[in-house]
Amino acid sequence: MGCAPMGHILYDEVMRYNPKNPYWFNRDRFVLSAGHGCMLQYALLHLAGYDAVKEEDLKSFRQWGSKTPGHPENFETPGVEVTTGPLGQGIANAVGLALAEKHLAARYNKPDNEIVDHYTYVILGDGCQMEGISNEACSLAGHWGLGKLIAFYDDNHISIDGDTEIAFTENVDTRFEALGWHVIWVKNGNTGYDEIRAAINEAKAVKDKPTLIKVTTTIGFGSPNKANSYSVHGSALGAKEVEATRQNLGWPYEPFHVPEDVKNHWSRHVAGGAAFEAEWNAKFSEYEKKYPEEAAELKSIITGELPAGWEKALPTYTPESPGDATRNLSQQNLNALAKVLPGLLEAGVIYVMTHDSIGLGEDGPTHQPIEHLASFRAMPNILMLRPADGNETAGAYKVAVLNKKRPSVLALSRQKLPQLPGTSIEGVEKGGYIVSDNSSGNKPDVILIGTGSELEIAVKAADELRKEGKGVRVVSFVCWELFDEQSDEYKESVLPASVTARVSIEAGSTFGWEKIVGAKGKAIGIDRFGASAPAGKIYKEFGITAEAVIAAAKELS
Amino acid sequence: MGCAPMGHILYDEVMRYNPKNPYWFNRDRFVLSAGHGCMLQYALLHLAGYDAVKEEDLKSFRQWGSKTPGHPENFETPGVEVTTGPLGQGIANAVGLALAEKHLAARYNKPDNEIVDHYTYVILGDGCQMEGISNEACSLAGHWGLGKLIAFYDDNHISIDGDTEIAFTENVDTRFEALGWHVIWVKNGNTGYDEIRAAINEAKAVKDKPTLIKVTTTIGFGSPNKANSYSVHGSALGAKEVEATRQNLGWPYEPFHVPEDVKNHWSRHVAGGAAFEAEWNAKFSEYEKKYPEEAAELKSIITGELPAGWEKALPTYTPESPGDATRNLSQQNLNALAKVLPGLLEAGVIYVMTHDSIGLGEDGPTHQPIEHLASFRAMPNILMLRPADGNETAGAYKVAVLNKKRPSVLALSRQKLPQLPGTSIEGVEKGGYIVSDNSSGNKPDVILIGTGSELEIAVKAADELRKEGKGVRVVSFVCWELFDEQSDEYKESVLPASVTARVSIEAGSTFGWEKIVGAKGKAIGIDRFGASAPAGKIYKEFGITAEAVIAAAKELS
Repeated sequence: MGCAPMGHILYDEVMRYNPKNPYWFNRDRFVLSAGHGCMLQYALLHLAGYDAVKEEDLKSFRQWGSKTPGHPENFETPGVEVTTGPLGQGIANAVGLALAEKHLAARYNKPDNEIVDHYTYVILGDGCQMEGISNEACSLAGHWGLGKLIAFYDDNHISIDGDTEIAFTENVDTRFEALGWHVIWVKNGNTGYDEIRAAINEAKAVKDKPTLIKVTTTIGFGSPNKANSYSVHGSALGAKEVEATRQNLGWPYEPFHVPEDVKNHWSRHVAGGAAFEAEWNAKFSEYEKKYPEEAAELKSIITGELPAGWEKALPTYTPESPGDATRNLSQQNLNALAKVLPGLLEAGVIYVMTHDSIGLGEDGPTHQPIEHLASFRAMPNILMLRPADGNETAGAYKVAVLNKKRPSVLALSRQKLPQLPGTSIEGVEKGGYIVSDNSSGNKPDVILIGTGSELEIAVKAADELRKEGKGVRVVSFVCWELFDEQSDEYKESVLPASVTARVSIEAGSTFGWEKIVGAKGKAIGIDRFGASAPAGKIYKEFGITAEAVIAAAKELS
Repeated sequence: MGCAPMGHILYDEVMRYNPKNPYWFNRDRFVLSAGHGCMLQYALLHLAGYDAVKEEDLKSFRQWGSKTPGHPENFETPGVEVTTGPLGQGIANAVGLALAEKHLAARYNKPDNEIVDHYTYVILGDGCQMEGISNEACSLAGHWGLGKLIAFYDDNHISIDGDTEIAFTENVDTRFEALGWHVIWVKNGNTGYDEIRAAINEAKAVKDKPTLIKVTTTIGFGSPNKANSYSVHGSALGAKEVEATRQNLGWPYEPFHVPEDVKNHWSRHVAGGAAFEAEWNAKFSEYEKKYPEEAAELKSIITGELPAGWEKALPTYTPESPGDATRNLSQQNLNALAKVLPGLLEAGVIYVMTHDSIGLGEDGPTHQPIEHLASFRAMPNILMLRPADGNETAGAYKVAVLNKKRPSVLALSRQKLPQLPGTSIEGVEKGGYIVSDNSSGNKPDVILIGTGSELEIAVKAADELRKEGKGVRVVSFVCWELFDEQSDEYKESVLPASVTARVSIEAGSTFGWEKIVGAKGKAIGIDRFGASAPAGKIYKEFGITAEAVIAAAKELS
C-alpha cells in the first residue's frame, strides 16, 4: 500500500506510545481519516505489540464479532479512540484532539513542568480533501495555530471514482498555505523513508502552525497490474494478483506470517513505550507535589470522575421564577456546572440546539426545524431532550452529564417560556412524567401530552377543561428514550392502557407520535415547513394552540 | 448596508433581465448566499420594476403571508428562483446555475448562434466562506472552469458572532486562487462604484475561470453608532439610530418613499429588459428555423413538458428476469429514460441513494443507514421510495419524474434482489399495495408488510405460513406518503381496520411503524447501529429473517 511507509514510520520511529497501555494520557495520537488504511492500522497495532490485536483478529478482518471491522471503531478495538469512516471525519477528529492538547497545555502546564505535551498525527486522502468538513476543520486549525498537529496527505491521485483529474484539480498545497498551515512535499512517498522522517522533523520545528506533509504515493504500490488504479480502492487484489505482488516485492512468507527479525525489530516498542510512560508518571508525581490542586483537577478530567454532590449545583425554579427562553436557562445551568465540573469530562457529547421549531419566528422556514426531533428519536443510542422550563433544563443537563456512553441533544427555545408548576429534575430523569392531574384511580378522562415549549399549551388547555369538570392529566414527555427504559408499572402509571383519549402537542412533525397517543388519540403538530412571521402568529395560524387541544380532547373524551 | 453597491450595480447596470417577465430563459442570474441582504433583494426587485413586489410588500417584511419572508424563498416571491438561508447554500446554488448554463451552451450553442449565453452573479459573506459546502462547490467551479460565474465576497469582517478575528483568519484570496479562480480585490466597496464596475469587466474578460471579487465593505455603512459591529447583523437598527443614519447620509424622505428621480432612473429597465428579451426571442426564432430538432429539445427542457408516452420506455420485469441490486436496476431505468427525456427537466430533485441499510455488509456501521428512512418520512413535502425489485424501481422513477413539485428519495440496494411476483409500476404509484393474498373477503389472518430488500423476506414468510393453512396477505409499502394520499376506501382495502395481526419488516429503525402495524402489531427492524460482516450474516444476527416474521405472525394470529 502506498500509505504504508507513513504509518510505519509513525508507529515505528516517531510516536510516543506504550503498546501495553494504549490509553496512557500523554502519548501521541494517530488518526486515520475515513477508512484510510484500515487493515494497515490493525497490522501496525499488532506488530507494535498491542496484545489485544492478534493474528487471528487480522484474519477475521470485516467479519461478524471481530475486533477488526471494515472501518476502525472506538469501543471495538483496543487502541482505537475515535470511529472514522465518513470521508473528512478523521481530519476533523484530529483537529479536535490537537485542540484539546493545546487547551490542556495552556491550562495546566507550568514553566518548570510541561505535563501536557504530545503530537497528533493524521493520514488523509484525496476523498477527504474533497469534503467541506475537512476545509472547515483545517481553517480552524490554522486559525488556532495548532503547531502539534501533523497531517499526512496521501496524494495518490485516486479516489473511489477514478483519477482525481475527473473532479478534483485544485492546488491543495496552496489552499493549506492560505489556511495558515506550513506545507511540505515529499515526492517519493513509496520508498522515501528518509524524506518522510526529515519532513516530520521539519514539521516539529514549526511550532506556531499545523503542518501538512503532502506525500505523493502510488496506490496499490507493488501490485504489478493494479497499482495506480481505482480498482484497488476498497476491494481485495484477488489471489492471482496477490501472488504477483508477493513475487514483485520479494516476499516469500505465508499469509499473516511475521518473520522473526521483523517481530524483534518491532518488539522494542514494548520496553520503549513503558519507559516513556514511566518517565511521564515520574514527571506527573513531581507536578502533583508542587501543584496539588491543578493535578487533582487534571486527574478528574482524565478519569472522568464526577465530584460528589455536583448535581446540587443545578439551579431549581418555582412557578414564581421569571420566565425565560430555555436557551438562556441552559446558559444558567452551564455557568452553574462550570463551577463544579472542571473540564473535558468523559461525558457523552452534549449537543445544545438553540433555535427550536417555529418559535424562532421571522427568520422563516429555512431556519425552523420540523422533522429534526423525529430524526433524532429514530437515531440509535442518543437521548433527545426537549425541556419546557428551568427545572426541565436543569434535569436535561443532569441526564446529559450522567450519560457518558451516549450523546444527548437538548432542543432549546429562543422565545421566553414560563416556569411551570409540577416540573422537576426527577421527572426529566424518567423521560415522561405527570405534571398535574385532577383525576383519581389512574382513570383520567383525557391525557394531554406536551414537550418543550408546548407543555405550557397543554397546561393551559387542562386548566380550561378542568373548569368544565373534566378529569385531566398533563404529561411532560421530555425524553422518549428515557421513558422507554422505565418499568412497565411506571409506564402504566403515567399512560394507562385503558385511557385511549390522548392528545399530544409538539411544534414539529407528528411522525412517530402514534406510538404514544395510539390509534384513537390525536397528535397535534406541524407536517409542513414553517413560515416567516412573529412566533405567536405562526402558532395561531398552524393551530398549535390551547383551543386546538381543547377541541381534540372534547372530541375524544 | 455595505453590500448595497454590489447589488445596486448588478441590478442597475450589468444584469440582463426583463422585470416584466422575470422567468425568461436567457437572463443573467443573481443569487444571494444565505440571507445576505434579504431586504436589499426585495427593494431592488421593487425598484427594478417587478410588478409583483410592491411598496406594501416591503412594509410587510417578515410578516405572515407576505411576499417578503425573512429569507427569500422560491415560490413565495416572483423573481426568486432559489431558496437560500443556510450559510453557504447560495454559493452552491450559484455554482449549479452556472454549471447548467455551461452544460446547455455546450449542448445547444452553434458557431453561428450562441443561444445560451448568460452570467451568474452571487453575493456571499464571511459566514458563507466558513462553511465547508462553499469550499466544495467552489473547488468544483474551479475544476469545471465556470468562466461565467462571478462571485462577490462581501468582506466586512463581521459575522453573527462578532469580528472574524475570533474564528476566521485564513487568506480567502489565496484559497480561491488555489481552487482555480481568478481573484480581484475592490478595496473601497462602500462607495467605489467605478472600481466595482471595472472588476466586473475584468471578470468577464477571464473566460476560463470563475471570478471572486473580494469587496471590502463596512457592515451597517452610514449608521454613525452601529456601523462595523455585529449588532447590525440580522437585527433592526432601532428608531433612534435609523434617524441618526438618515441624518448622516442626508436622506430626508419618508420611510419607503422613493423619490421621483430615483424611480425614473430605475424605470428604464422595463424597456431595456423587454428589448433584451425581444432580441433573444428573435435569435431563438432563427435558431429554430435552422436547428429545429435541437430547438424543440431545448424548449422541452425549458418548459419541463414531458413527451407523450415517455413512461412506455420504463422497463418491466417478470419473476423470471434475473435478480439484481436495485441500484443496478436504477441504472437500467436511467438509461431507458435518457433516451426519451432529453435534459434537465423541471422534475423535482431525485436523490438516488445507493448504499441502503445493513445490506451493504462489510463496510460496517459507519456506512449503514439506520434512522434515515424515518428521517425522510418525517420530512415535509418529500417522497421516500424504497423499491423491492425491477418493477418497483421503474415505478419509483415514474413517480419521481411526475412529481415536479417535491423531491423524491430512492433508497437502492447494493446487494442482489430477486424479481418478485405481484410487484408493479401501478402498485408503486399507490404507495402501498397487495403483492399477494390467499385469503378472501378482505379478512386475512395476518398481514405481512415489507419494503425494499425486505419484501422478499415477507414473501418467503408468507409462503411458509400458507403451507400451514394461514390466510396471508403480503403488502409492499414502498412509499408511505403516496399511501397516505389514497382514498379511505383504498386504504381499508389494503389494511382493513379489523385485521390487527400485522407484521412489518424493514432493515432500519422501527420508529414510526406503530402507525402502520398498530398497537397490536409487531414491527421488525433495527434499533441499534449496524455491524461489519457479510450482509447475510448481519441479517441473521439482527433477526431480519423469514423465521422472525413467521414467529411474530403466529404469535399475533
